[in-house]
Amino acid sequence: MLKIAVIHGPNLNLLGTREPEVYGTMTLAEINEAIGDKATELGLEVKIAQYNSEGEIITALHQAAQWADGVVINPGAYTHYSYAIRDALAATGLPAVEVHLSNIHAREDFRRTSVTAPACHGVITGFGALGYLLALESFAQKGEVV
Amino acid sequence: MLKIAVIHGPNLNLLGTREPEVYGTMTLAEINEAIGDKATELGLEVKIAQYNSEGEIITALHQAAQWADGVVINPGAYTHYSYAIRDALAATGLPAVEVHLSNIHAREDFRRTSVTAPACHGVITGFGALGYLLALESFAQKGEVV
Amino acid sequence: MLKIAVIHGPNLNLLGTREPEVYGTMTLAEINEAIGDKATELGLEVKIAQYNSEGEIITALHQAAQWADGVVINPGAYTHYSYAIRDALAATGLPAVEVHLSNIHAREDFRRTSVTAPACHGVITGFGALGYLLALESFAQKGEVV
Amino acid sequence: MLKIAVIHGPNLNLLGTREPEVYGTMTLAEINEAIGDKATELGLEVKIAQYNSEGEIITALHQAAQWADGVVINPGAYTHYSYAIRDALAATGLPAVEVHLSNIHAREDFRRTSVTAPACHGVITGFGALGYLLALESFAQKGEVV
Amino acid sequence: MLKIAVIHGPNLNLLGTREPEVYGTMTLAEINEAIGDKATELGLEVKIAQYNSEGEIITALHQAAQWADGVVINPGAYTHYSYAIRDALAATGLPAVEVHLSNIHAREDFRRTSVTAPACHGVITGFGALGYLLALESFAQKGEVV
Amino acid sequence: MLKIAVIHGPNLNLLGTREPEVYGTMTLAEINEAIGDKATELGLEVKIAQYNSEGEIITALHQAAQWADGVVINPGAYTHYSYAIRDALAATGLPAVEVHLSNIHAREDFRRTSVTAPACHGVITGFGALGYLLALESFAQKGEVV
Amino acid sequence: MLKIAVIHGPNLNLLGTREPEVYGTMTLAEINEAIGDKATELGLEVKIAQYNSEGEIITALHQAAQWADGVVINPGAYTHYSYAIRDALAATGLPAVEVHLSNIHAREDFRRTSVTAPACHGVITGFGALGYLLALESFAQKGEVV
Amino acid sequence: MLKIAVIHGPNLNLLGTREPEVYGTMTLAEINEAIGDKATELGLEVKIAQYNSEGEIITALHQAAQWADGVVINPGAYTHYSYAIRDALAATGLPAVEVHLSNIHAREDFRRTSVTAPACHGVITGFGALGYLLALESFAQKGEVV
Amino acid sequence: MLKIAVIHGPNLNLLGTREPEVYGTMTLAEINEAIGDKATELGLEVKIAQYNSEGEIITALHQAAQWADGVVINPGAYTHYSYAIRDALAATGLPAVEVHLSNIHAREDFRRTSVTAPACHGVITGFGALGYLLALESFAQKGEVV
Amino acid sequence: MLKIAVIHGPNLNLLGTREPEVYGTMTLAEINEAIGDKATELGLEVKIAQYNSEGEIITALHQAAQWADGVVINPGAYTHYSYAIRDALAATGLPAVEVHLSNIHAREDFRRTSVTAPACHGVITGFGALGYLLALESFAQKGEVV
Amino acid sequence: MLKIAVIHGPNLNLLGTREPEVYGTMTLAEINEAIGDKATELGLEVKIAQYNSEGEIITALHQAAQWADGVVINPGAYTHYSYAIRDALAATGLPAVEVHLSNIHAREDFRRTSVTAPACHGVITGFGALGYLLALESFAQKGEVV
Amino acid sequence: MLKIAVIHGPNLNLLGTREPEVYGTMTLAEINEAIGDKATELGLEVKIAQYNSEGEIITALHQAAQWADGVVINPGAYTHYSYAIRDALAATGLPAVEVHLSNIHAREDFRRTSVTAPACHGVITGFGALGYLLALESFAQKGEVV
Repeated sequence: MLKIAVIHGPNLNLLGTREPEVYGTMTLAEINEAIGDKATELGLEVKIAQYNSEGEIITALHQAAQWADGVVINPGAYTHYSYAIRDALAATGLPAVEVHLSNIHAREDFRRTSVTAPACHGVITGFGALGYLLALESFAQKGEVV
Repeated sequence: MLKIAVIHGPNLNLLGTREPEVYGTMTLAEINEAIGDKATELGLEVKIAQYNSEGEIITALHQAAQWADGVVINPGAYTHYSYAIRDALAATGLPAVEVHLSNIHAREDFRRTSVTAPACHGVITGFGALGYLLALESFAQKGEVV
Repeated sequence: MLKIAVIHGPNLNLLGTREPEVYGTMTLAEINEAIGDKATELGLEVKIAQYNSEGEIITALHQAAQWADGVVINPGAYTHYSYAIRDALAATGLPAVEVHLSNIHAREDFRRTSVTAPACHGVITGFGALGYLLALESFAQKGEVV
Repeated sequence: MLKIAVIHGPNLNLLGTREPEVYGTMTLAEINEAIGDKATELGLEVKIAQYNSEGEIITALHQAAQWADGVVINPGAYTHYSYAIRDALAATGLPAVEVHLSNIHAREDFRRTSVTAPACHGVITGFGALGYLLALESFAQKGEVV
Repeated sequence: MLKIAVIHGPNLNLLGTREPEVYGTMTLAEINEAIGDKATELGLEVKIAQYNSEGEIITALHQAAQWADGVVINPGAYTHYSYAIRDALAATGLPAVEVHLSNIHAREDFRRTSVTAPACHGVITGFGALGYLLALESFAQKGEVV
Repeated sequence: MLKIAVIHGPNLNLLGTREPEVYGTMTLAEINEAIGDKATELGLEVKIAQYNSEGEIITALHQAAQWADGVVINPGAYTHYSYAIRDALAATGLPAVEVHLSNIHAREDFRRTSVTAPACHGVITGFGALGYLLALESFAQKGEVV
Repeated sequence: MLKIAVIHGPNLNLLGTREPEVYGTMTLAEINEAIGDKATELGLEVKIAQYNSEGEIITALHQAAQWADGVVINPGAYTHYSYAIRDALAATGLPAVEVHLSNIHAREDFRRTSVTAPACHGVITGFGALGYLLALESFAQKGEVV
Repeated sequence: MLKIAVIHGPNLNLLGTREPEVYGTMTLAEINEAIGDKATELGLEVKIAQYNSEGEIITALHQAAQWADGVVINPGAYTHYSYAIRDALAATGLPAVEVHLSNIHAREDFRRTSVTAPACHGVITGFGALGYLLALESFAQKGEVV
Repeated sequence: MLKIAVIHGPNLNLLGTREPEVYGTMTLAEINEAIGDKATELGLEVKIAQYNSEGEIITALHQAAQWADGVVINPGAYTHYSYAIRDALAATGLPAVEVHLSNIHAREDFRRTSVTAPACHGVITGFGALGYLLALESFAQKGEVV
Repeated sequence: MLKIAVIHGPNLNLLGTREPEVYGTMTLAEINEAIGDKATELGLEVKIAQYNSEGEIITALHQAAQWADGVVINPGAYTHYSYAIRDALAATGLPAVEVHLSNIHAREDFRRTSVTAPACHGVITGFGALGYLLALESFAQKGEVV
Repeated sequence: MLKIAVIHGPNLNLLGTREPEVYGTMTLAEINEAIGDKATELGLEVKIAQYNSEGEIITALHQAAQWADGVVINPGAYTHYSYAIRDALAATGLPAVEVHLSNIHAREDFRRTSVTAPACHGVITGFGALGYLLALESFAQKGEVV
Repeated sequence: MLKIAVIHGPNLNLLGTREPEVYGTMTLAEINEAIGDKATELGLEVKIAQYNSEGEIITALHQAAQWADGVVINPGAYTHYSYAIRDALAATGLPAVEVHLSNIHAREDFRRTSVTAPACHGVITGFGALGYLLALESFAQKGEVV
């Protein structure tokens, strides 16, 4: 059974109330429930956590390297400048999928560049909470089709 | 039944033989077969085409606006400079998903920017042929979860 | 009788339905009718065509060099990157007027620069369909006032 | 009867003698006479003035807001850096047409950008004195065609 | 016998009449005749074609991959932005020589950069029609000296 | 008999041992011998020299202006910053051909720009030692074809 | 009694009617009255003036150096390019506070940079008319707390 | 009674000893005392805290959203790159005032840009500790004058 | 007898008191006296004026075109952005010398570029008041040596 | 006896397993042991710590200011954007040496710039673990030679 | 008697024949004679030399520090990139005047910036050979007027 | 016994007298003596030389490739632009350490970038003459610890 670490970055704990016209009305709890359901459906084991601190995310990635087979990460705003998270992703040696709720290519300039994505295997952006589920599918289906 | 136009951009007809270390060994025919199977599984109708010419892609998008409910597009290298395809995507008013086989964030500088993505609803990059299947899933599942 | 080639670029065939808050509600057929009426009024002969493909526009310009006395061109999104259309404009040796429906100076950054304009004699931008008529006037009146 | 303020910017008082290979041989008086004739023909009322000072142009725009229905302005070199004139144009709330004698897109780099144009409704560039007449036509015909 | 695809890009069909002070007075037919003569002299087989459309050039390169041993290409203005032609060149896996009639390093800024050259083996620029003949020589002599 | 000054720039004396995967295994002596043979074949007189110092190359160009009919120069790394060599090339008034062993367009960013090329008549890059021979051919054939 | 010169820059005379969604509905007269009241409350003497011309603002600053103990200045759009006003501020040797009604950091790019602020002691931006009153307070309280 | 969260960012705990020629000689305790006194005078309730960690500041802002009516924040060096704090400020939905002790416009280049300010309502910079007091005043007086 | 217009730009009226460590301790009156003495010595007629307003400088240049044989101008901070003064200098058709008291190449970045200098025949910078005298000498000696 | 705080930044706890082709095969424990041995040899007292969090590093630097005579710091990826660590280094007033295992000048673009180095006295990069030992030597020998 | 080292940079030995439309028709010998005559007239002792090599210019500056009271230098194209000559100028501690024959502000982009000028006291550009004489005057008159 | 070539670049012969507040008061002779002593202590053989000319440094590096086991180089100002020295360093194939007396990261912008460092194994900057000794240590200890 594949084990996946799902890591939510800063401010995502406020989902549902924070700028809902951009990020939707689902709360993080609801998204996590959907992630859990999808994981069960796909036969994956997931551990989910949310952190506001860059250092905590780095440490969480280090720990994931001990037990997980893959990472699904939404680095939030750290996406755009945290070379330290990028290095942590590379250091774990795990396949990782970067997820963004909104389509970062259609927003402010500073959100169009991801410094963490080069250390990931794939990026899914713009599908709201569905993005996390597609990321799980990518782990479940990997190897079957491609 | 949702109808989806799947549009492959320039050079994708060479898949399987072209730089397989970057783009994988599946041919376009094999990818299209997988797309067809997935569509059947998800209860979607797909029409698939490949074009090398920017103008043909624009015209194909105009025609899709007559019959399709959504677009899955891999604009190939046009991704990085074709404002005309971007305008065509916006003009159709259809939801669109941009797919790239490789993780464009981890390649040459010019491949890290997409001028077409701002006219799409979501982007999936780095999953090889699986990216197309995830794009189809996003259409099938839309509304159920988010 | 002066003969003018009027060339519409990509996506302009969708006028009237495409983002009407930006481009207005007139269809291309209606605009072409207004162009025809104005030409008759001014004693000009016009041939009008629309192309989505960059190569077709280049070829159309080459052909115009055989019969036309001037060009009115709206290169659409090609305005912002097609050095090939620029070269074609320069190669024809014909006076050309570049027209844009919207005021390109007041839109997204990439729309503020025209790489084709340096090969034109004048540019008219922001007047909607009226811009084409003013362009025709500029050919009709040239020499009378200035 | 529509009332139009025509404002010439710095150095335009020297027209006819100043670099005639770029700006033509018509003097400002001759251009103004042509503008007056055209206005009469079109049933427009025009007031014409020329200023070298940025502050005077701003004040003239403020005053135009009291009586005019539209503005035709050639901001001369201020086009390229006067955010204060841009703000004045926006503050008047009047429709404005920016005119340049030469094709600014085909000249030195610094002349290719207009910081005032985003506060105008349209721009006409490269037609010599004829540009002013086309600008007047745009006011006269507005509403009829588009 | 080595087989070489010679591909002329947009606007080159106008050679001889188009800005002769830049591009010389030889027509494309005369250049092609010189290419044919040189090929005969060197024992090479050449097929020559000219295309205005980016998509046609891409398709022509795909086809060359079926029969040719090398490519001589003058991508015209596509040189400066067509990542799609660059990808096509890379996808063919053929050795390619990029040729420009004028010295692109001594012209406008935008002409000094080639996005297609990184997918070529060599570049010859500034020798007029002679450049094509030198390119042929490079195929004929390859292996003898170096 | 045409007389050609062949000038090799800095570090080229190390050819054959220096990064052979980039520059090939021929030594400068072997290249010079090939140049001499080719010159004899073409009926050209060549004088060949190599310099590490920017000032020596400038002086060599000044001296070439006294006796040579043309220059073949590989400015090595000076290509990318020596405005002084560019001035020297311009000052001689001689036709010059710039040669590079590797395809500078496919290497590090700083190697993609040549500040000396605008003072040359043509550039040949990416053909290894063969580039020098093609440069000699361009002098020999000049006038015959183009 | 501290004497403060309050200088309003270009277009501020239109306050209340000009883009009220950005600049609020208070007129300049109302703002000046509030400034006067606050000055009385704080025991400061103020002289208030508004200028559209860059040169007049420079001259006003020179004159302030004769009598004032401090300057409160809203340079309007000159903020973004008037190095001459910056020099005038530095030349007076007076402490100066730059005030902006709107939060310039949250607006168009060109409004985010102030070339005049480096010659001021402090900047207050985004508080509407209240900003002027806070600026006066800063003069009144200076020395008491810090 | 309005409740205001006052948040000091990294290194501000060293005030008084750290580069006093830039930041003054008041300690953070003395500044906090002055803030407390001012709050009492203005009838505001304040809670003050200092954090070195970006994540702690984000969490503190989230908590402030539960009880505070406004935020006064000096993000220290995070001002210049913490898009995560910017997002947290926006997510709280609270009015916020950004304060800097020194005039950031007159210091090193990297200090002249604030990525957090666009999520604030106003910015006060260059007044030393007085800046915090002016920020409190802006909350107390808001609504009275403007 | 050659007639020279000497034009001092903004803030130069404050010379002697303004930042004397940068601009020296001579007042403008003293400099003007030295200019007058030098002119007498060289047999030149000079008219000297100082303006703070960009528009006044433009008008003064227009007037100089009526009577002067040359211009000596210190455009002060307008040097760095006034394309309008540049155009005025070009429009007069007079030889002009740009003078700066301080060495602009050794100061802040924005002072290192002159947009007015391209319309002048020469520039003298860094010699304090002596620069004006050298400029006069250049007019007096012109033709004798070079 | 000199006391030195040795601070390892984010991800350095993974040394030995993380990308050993870049960072070598020594673990952090082994490096720390070598640091301890060298300190004993040189008569220095060292305290060593590793942190993933930017805020912890800042706090550790503040604490070092209470007891240490110098700092050896490898800020890891924070090197490239943490102005907050830079400020902390400056605030401590301690001499600091920045160490990098790999030669940052020979890696990706973003690794070539250090925003923390300007607050250090020296930088040692590219020597692997030896870099820390050289840093200790620099403290031990300081004063003896230079 | 003041002693001045006059140093001509690369390519200046070709003056008179090299691009005379830019640099004039005087040879270097004639210029040097004029310099000698002027020095005699002004009571200055000059030593004049010309070098093509950057290293020779640096050494010449070091030697000048032994005997000269000032330097007049035309660094030619080294002006635009030789930080080593700039350091040499700074290291000598001598007052230096940089001279350019042509107005570098009115030429190609790369010629508009001087990296050597910040280490000089003044710059004179655009006066042809007269520039050297004005430079000598600046040494002779220094102290008398300013 | 390891043999090390120590190469000092331009202007370093002036050490001790040149800007001692930046570069210290030790002369080059004193530094070289310290280097010699350290080499003896470490059992290394060193040859030390200083050159002002870029070409001489390149040639010295070529010669070092014949006898030395490593290079210690302070390229002086050439650090910032000499791609030719970078190529020479790479061509030698020797391990090299770049040394700078001052901390180049804390100086003018142009001194913060090293174009030669990518061809070195390590860089030591900011330790004054001690930097050379640490470089020698790095050669002596290499292999023992790491």
